[in-house]
Amino acid sequence: MRVRKRKGAEELISSHPEYVVDQAHTFKGKWHERFGNDHPIHIEIGMGKGQFITEMAKAHPEINYIGVEIQVSVVSFALDKVLAEELPNVQLLHVDGSSLTEYFADGEVDRIYLNFSDPWPKKRHEKRRLTYKSFLAVDEQILKPAGEIHFKTDNQGLFEYSLASFSQYGMTILQVWLDLHHSNYEGNIMTEYEEKFSSRGQRIYRVEARFNGKQ
Amino acid sequence: MRVRKRKGAEELISSHPEYVVDQAHTFKGKWHERFGNDHPIHIEIGMGKGQFITEMAKAHPEINYIGVEIQVSVVSFALDKVLAEELPNVQLLHVDGSSLTEYFADGEVDRIYLNFSDPWPKKRHEKRRLTYKSFLAVDEQILKPAGEIHFKTDNQGLFEYSLASFSQYGMTILQVWLDLHHSNYEGNIMTEYEEKFSSRGQRIYRVEARFNGKQ
Repeated sequence: MRVRKRKGAEELISSHPEYVVDQAHTFKGKWHERFGNDHPIHIEIGMGKGQFITEMAKAHPEINYIGVEIQVSVVSFALDKVLAEELPNVQLLHVDGSSLTEYFADGEVDRIYLNFSDPWPKKRHEKRRLTYKSFLAVDEQILKPAGEIHFKTDNQGLFEYSLASFSQYGMTILQVWLDLHHSNYEGNIMTEYEEKFSSRGQRIYRVEARFNGKQ
Repeated sequence: MRVRKRKGAEELISSHPEYVVDQAHTFKGKWHERFGNDHPIHIEIGMGKGQFITEMAKAHPEINYIGVEIQVSVVSFALDKVLAEELPNVQLLHVDGSSLTEYFADGEVDRIYLNFSDPWPKKRHEKRRLTYKSFLAVDEQILKPAGEIHFKTDNQGLFEYSLASFSQYGMTILQVWLDLHHSNYEGNIMTEYEEKFSSRGQRIYRVEARFNGKQ
């Protein structure tokens, strides 16, 4: 997502190391210690302004959430929400989503959320899509065996691509929603982007897919 | 599909054994002999009134097509079209689609088409859907290894179900179209049903999926 630059974003982030971890690679394999419990760890790659992860954390106190986001201004807006709620089960990671193996040990993560990822519609940019096989390989490595990706998007082309990409990687498609907001799916928590585009009548697509263990 | 009963349908069919095969089980394992060539065999399960299969046969003379349909009146309408075109590469099979192993030897079929199959939307009727696992097992048996199913429908619920069913059976999703008539897919041949419902603005969904060989 593109957002305006926020003045003081870096200062805000560095003054809250209790939420936006500093020296993130030192927590690799130690996230349960950091949270102080053994609850499952769910991460959102590209968390945007943090509405999804903070609402999920409020709704599911028995889960630890880590939001990953590369853009500093975006992370700072997410931090605002976490600070306002004083959530004990959220951590923010200001790093590049493509380097996740530096920050998570093999099998340390229980579930990955991808919400409204950049569609990169041009064929020559296929490798940048977060559901391209190289990203799936990283996801598989940090996820527990049989770990799941839960993905939603309003982008038809990216959804068509991702279903095939998951399947061709060897993942199993568990369930598909072709119009999430007019389905019987319960407990959907919307991202900022989702609220905006679904209110314009845009369909929201969703899929849950599972890795089938290392080859 | 439901159609009005046609008077004389049975007589029409039985007077054209060159197109609607009689004693169909005697051709099991012998379809190439019947066609008199070694061209690939593509079958459509539930061919309806035959527009798809006759147009496909005209467009692809290098493929042998077999249309399977249980309802006698429907078969007779398809026969009208085949007779009008005098197509050498079409055969019609007036049998129940669930008993295909009686009419095809293991690996005798190169591709299966499913078009606008009955959605059976109630959960308790799941086993009647042509993309339910028991039908996929029959399809896998009569298809060559790595044989494909090409499926299209306007029914959102059936499409969501079928993507998951294919994947959970162990098939690979090769490509997905979530709005076929507004895509760059070339050479689409419409069924009678497809013409009617797409003209009302209904989306058409399509998927190509491949079996991954016997377990």
